[in-house]
Amino acid sequence: MGKRSSGAPTLSDVAALAGVSPATASKALNGRGEVAAATRTRVLDAAEKLAFQPNALARSLVSGNSSTIGLLTSDSGGRFSIPVLLGAENALGDNQISVLLADARGDVIRERHYVRTLLAQQVAGLIVVGESSNRRASIGRDLAVPVVYAYAESTDPQDLSLLPDDRVGARMAVEHLHSVGRRKIAHITGPVDYRATRDRVTGLTEFLQEAGLPLAGREVRYGEWSQRWGRHAAEFVLNDDPDVDAIFCGSDQVAAGVTETLAARGVRVPDDIALVGFDNWEIFSSETSPPLTTVDMNLQRLGATAAQHLFAAIGGEKITGVQHLPCRLVIRDSSGGR
Amino acid sequence: MGKRSSGAPTLSDVAALAGVSPATASKALNGRGEVAAATRTRVLDAAEKLAFQPNALARSLVSGNSSTIGLLTSDSGGRFSIPVLLGAENALGDNQISVLLADARGDVIRERHYVRTLLAQQVAGLIVVGESSNRRASIGRDLAVPVVYAYAESTDPQDLSLLPDDRVGARMAVEHLHSVGRRKIAHITGPVDYRATRDRVTGLTEFLQEAGLPLAGREVRYGEWSQRWGRHAAEFVLNDDPDVDAIFCGSDQVAAGVTETLAARGVRVPDDIALVGFDNWEIFSSETSPPLTTVDMNLQRLGATAAQHLFAAIGGEKITGVQHLPCRLVIRDSSGGR
Repeated sequence: MGKRSSGAPTLSDVAALAGVSPATASKALNGRGEVAAATRTRVLDAAEKLAFQPNALARSLVSGNSSTIGLLTSDSGGRFSIPVLLGAENALGDNQISVLLADARGDVIRERHYVRTLLAQQVAGLIVVGESSNRRASIGRDLAVPVVYAYAESTDPQDLSLLPDDRVGARMAVEHLHSVGRRKIAHITGPVDYRATRDRVTGLTEFLQEAGLPLAGREVRYGEWSQRWGRHAAEFVLNDDPDVDAIFCGSDQVAAGVTETLAARGVRVPDDIALVGFDNWEIFSSETSPPLTTVDMNLQRLGATAAQHLFAAIGGEKITGVQHLPCRLVIRDSSGGR
Repeated sequence: MGKRSSGAPTLSDVAALAGVSPATASKALNGRGEVAAATRTRVLDAAEKLAFQPNALARSLVSGNSSTIGLLTSDSGGRFSIPVLLGAENALGDNQISVLLADARGDVIRERHYVRTLLAQQVAGLIVVGESSNRRASIGRDLAVPVVYAYAESTDPQDLSLLPDDRVGARMAVEHLHSVGRRKIAHITGPVDYRATRDRVTGLTEFLQEAGLPLAGREVRYGEWSQRWGRHAAEFVLNDDPDVDAIFCGSDQVAAGVTETLAARGVRVPDDIALVGFDNWEIFSSETSPPLTTVDMNLQRLGATAAQHLFAAIGGEKITGVQHLPCRLVIRDSSGGR
């Protein structure tokens, strides 16, 4: 991951000198009340010392005028884009930055059209959200405003792409199952052509190898992101390996289906089989019986980070490459872990 | 529902004279290829006869320049706003109109901010989507551009509000259960403070009275929009009235929970109890076992209609009041109706 800095001092330089985040530096400079007086003084001193000249978005933030960021998504369900949007808005402060969402539906022509539209609307930057976290074509290098890919990976290494760390997230799930005493852990997941699927399998496999455990349930069960697949795959796993004592599911939707099959067969969760999902998609994870221990991809935080990087890039500091942001484990009753 | 027309001829006048829809008139006038030659000639003749002078959005459509519409939502899950957005885009033709979504999160200050932002971006009109279809405050009468409320009802009768016809939708659900021979129909639904809940109960009650049937399951079971509530309420219904032969659920999420309880108690769907949901939210309705017969609110069509009304209003023809648009019944296996 490279890092380039232009000659002129940036908001990030001010923030670094003051020992605060760019967001805090911005708040201090535009006089919003959420910053402690001492911090504000430090930031103003740093800005003066560096002869900081805010520009573009930074200027509008400092002046208190509002700016607009475009969020270009192909995630028609809003499953990923809405949390990213909320996070970006929150990061940038109330009423300072507006985020407008445009839905390109995974269609290249529509996407180009929306990039033009958003640029014509004078957005200060663009966030691109994928319908999955798979690699996708860059929207281009020569745009007038900075771009950050969030829950999407651009094929151009000169772009900045932010992804949840699926590998470590999966590892946390399996470590948790191990820590509550499970040793026969099976895995039921989605399609193998999803990067998220493969990274989660990698995290699972790494941990099992380090712990000296074989994968239970005969093999990784690849399928669909659906309850139907969860129901069927649970039958396969239980028929092939009746001793399984835990199932790690690649999504909460799959875990909801697994829960149904376990209930139908009189298998108790978590007593007989502990269950962990992935997503913390609450219409599933809070609603299964029992509620689901699961891995949360922190999508709001991903959106907030994307906004902060946009902000830094507008201030002259451009980061490139791929960053993996941490997931967190949400423990509920299905794993017997609390 | 009133109707006002200014003196100057509007696109709708042209459309009416040519005997086509405003959308078709627009396509014909801006020379897009999707209109039959004879239709196009009729529209051009009508425009000439009326000395039609398109303005604002109409002009930009006719010229082929793109315009932008703002979609202001408080539906943070995207459950209602995304289908409305897709429908609005589709209605207005590829690459002619962009729809940008702003999420106000049900917060009045944030909403005002976004209205200002969208107006500053020179949107040609606004569509307001609710987090429910309950009545909500108008965003105001004196905006520079027309506004349509879609899946939301403005408290100002001078605004135009488009709602799904929940009452008739519920009636279709119960008529269907009646048509497949069910006579002991119970109802499990969401919170009573949702207008949608109440309208669905009204439709159910009207039909049962006309058919001379009592409501089964002792009483309407009001609760939450959740699987958990569906599971519990199904227990109550079966304990109080074991002869129930059908359950109409106020949402697919509730129906998913009901399905779980019926499976756990060995009740066969649809043989013993037929099930109908509401929403056609496919992550539930296509995924329950068996898949769910349900009422679809046609939200994409609602969005398309909102866009067409915006378009007509920009052309000078303003409609006010509340319009209820038809739902449709989607028949799957849970009702034994196919």
